[in-house]
Amino acid sequence: MNFWTGPTLDVQADHVRTLDQTRLPFEVQWLHLRTLQDCERAIRDMQIRGAPLIGAVAAFGLALALREGVPLNLAAARLAATRPTAVNLQWALAQVRAAVEPTGAYPGAAPTDRSSDAVSGAVSGSVSDGVSDAVSDAVSDAAARAWQRACAIAADDVRINAAIGEHGLRLLEQRLALRHAAARPVQSDAPLQILTHCNAGRLATVDHGTALAPIYAAHAAGIPVHVWVDETRPRNQGASLTAWELMQAGVSCTVVADNAGGWLMQQGQVDAVIVGCDRVAANGDVANKIGTLLKALAARDAGIPFWVACPTPTLDRAVADGRGIPIEMRDPRELTHARARRMDGGIEEVSLMQDGVKALNPAFDVTPARLVDALITEHGVMSASHPIA
Amino acid sequence: MNFWTGPTLDVQADHVRTLDQTRLPFEVQWLHLRTLQDCERAIRDMQIRGAPLIGAVAAFGLALALREGVPLNLAAARLAATRPTAVNLQWALAQVRAAVEPTGAYPGAAPTDRSSDAVSGAVSGSVSDGVSDAVSDAVSDAAARAWQRACAIAADDVRINAAIGEHGLRLLEQRLALRHAAARPVQSDAPLQILTHCNAGRLATVDHGTALAPIYAAHAAGIPVHVWVDETRPRNQGASLTAWELMQAGVSCTVVADNAGGWLMQQGQVDAVIVGCDRVAANGDVANKIGTLLKALAARDAGIPFWVACPTPTLDRAVADGRGIPIEMRDPRELTHARARRMDGGIEEVSLMQDGVKALNPAFDVTPARLVDALITEHGVMSASHPIA
Repeated sequence: MNFWTGPTLDVQADHVRTLDQTRLPFEVQWLHLRTLQDCERAIRDMQIRGAPLIGAVAAFGLALALREGVPLNLAAARLAATRPTAVNLQWALAQVRAAVEPTGAYPGAAPTDRSSDAVSGAVSGSVSDGVSDAVSDAVSDAAARAWQRACAIAADDVRINAAIGEHGLRLLEQRLALRHAAARPVQSDAPLQILTHCNAGRLATVDHGTALAPIYAAHAAGIPVHVWVDETRPRNQGASLTAWELMQAGVSCTVVADNAGGWLMQQGQVDAVIVGCDRVAANGDVANKIGTLLKALAARDAGIPFWVACPTPTLDRAVADGRGIPIEMRDPRELTHARARRMDGGIEEVSLMQDGVKALNPAFDVTPARLVDALITEHGVMSASHPIA
Repeated sequence: MNFWTGPTLDVQADHVRTLDQTRLPFEVQWLHLRTLQDCERAIRDMQIRGAPLIGAVAAFGLALALREGVPLNLAAARLAATRPTAVNLQWALAQVRAAVEPTGAYPGAAPTDRSSDAVSGAVSGSVSDGVSDAVSDAVSDAAARAWQRACAIAADDVRINAAIGEHGLRLLEQRLALRHAAARPVQSDAPLQILTHCNAGRLATVDHGTALAPIYAAHAAGIPVHVWVDETRPRNQGASLTAWELMQAGVSCTVVADNAGGWLMQQGQVDAVIVGCDRVAANGDVANKIGTLLKALAARDAGIPFWVACPTPTLDRAVADGRGIPIEMRDPRELTHARARRMDGGIEEVSLMQDGVKALNPAFDVTPARLVDALITEHGVMSASHPIA
């Protein structure tokens, strides 16, 4: 164990390196993303997932596209289409465009894509007249600025998540103090019990995680914590990713079926629920992994705080409330099949259900702001009822 | 399809026949339960499951035990230990005991179990003195009465469930009328949308099912129905059993992850939730498959009725409220592993999670009476707040 403690996204000179999350927890395999297509596939096929990591990879994808000479509009449109719900993706693409476009020098931003032929020529060095040289300079300048902005987005994500960890740690400390002050006798060494859904950990970000950042901060501060990890069907990100990364970090955790959270809360075995988010509407409604809503309802019913770790790039002022957030319908095969290890040790996709069964696979749900006790942002803890007032 | 429409429990002259539910949906294999041990294993290993079916099989198990010459107390204790939460099991055992014990003639009911040796001798015919003959007669008489009572329990279950179907059908018809009367335009042929959790269908009973009985009744009455089937982790009874039996019966259904129910209700895609129950406390609190509570909370939040199909043998006057219902903790392997079909068509138990991961597997949760809009019993529809006043 404990063989992986680096960042999830490792920026190299000319490409980025990240873990193929579809292979975890059975295999640890690094991906080298060198082209727009690599990044597009990584996001679309969920080799990487998690709103902040999607944003960073999309930013590098746009920068790599410019190096390849793919027109900016086309590259941005292709990346934007990979995952419709994640607002960080749109935000990151806009950031990179803003870094590239103000000069007006980049030919790919023009409505025609004829320039891409010229760019290809320039890059391959087969055309050397003055016009192509100018285009080539503009392209390499735009690509360099895009790359620089992508690096800044990645570095910002690390800073943002570290700050979320610190602000969340304060909430956890308050919760611990409250428990110690409670009438019923509590063992002082009883761990703080946190329930989380899906993976909003290091694997969902460039580093630290969002929902798991306060947990890592508490663990580092010597506060005993134990995490109930929702399996998170249908893709099992809790069981496969969250449990994996917590075990790597030496944080105590137990996987439970998504169905078990209500019972755990009923039994007084949960001190707080912390989840991440894919998008937060202007009114504080939170779109997150399907099933989040059920945990928010159970937490409210049991009087347990429900916190959403929320980097501000995830806030979407353009969407008034949760009804405006598009919910991605994914392949039913994610539900009917699963990647599993056979008894002989081999790994393959197996069928969990009979042939011909109909299945529906909504990827997200919306938790209304009224059920969210706090948004933990990099700037501090906010009320979900007035997230961006 | 439609190759199985008989009862789940088929009573033969000297044994009972039922489907091995651990093999569904991939294989259809009949079990012949001929001994106490067969019945014990069938219940404990969940080859059969569902409170009413467990009760019936336990009853036959006790009758078969008496035929084998196993002392009544010992047989009853062994059967009672197989599944602690299901009250029908205790109820059925008490029913059979009551049919056997009043005469005081059955030797196994005595505090000593020395008589079992005599019984064995009598059964094997190696002892033929007058005392053994009397014992032998008493045993065969007790066994016959036990068998008769078990048959009556099975027949009652069929009648009870048919009545639940009729009473539940009335609720569904009201719901349909309400929808047609609503202001928003509704297609008259739009199916009534029912969400169910776990399997409380034919496979959970001797026949008809409990939660599915009203759905079958509606289908038979020509009312278009569509069932959202919760996958029901960790044992996947929804995906493996409910979807299977609904497809056999030609009822339209779609499997969803347990996480999806809240979203479906939020979207107005559910007209009612119907579930079964394993035990209902005197105050109306309902113990049912883990995850039921989350659906009840979501239904209440969305203003959708939450109904529990509840044969009266499931009511437990001896337990004041849900806190008194023991919650069975099952093998974590049910969560970490799954029976699945490989790409080559072979069926085996595969691992869904990494080795060494900790998992907790509570089998039930308790839905408080305040969240239950109605108990559908064989006697009619009752308020959960006054279930056995």
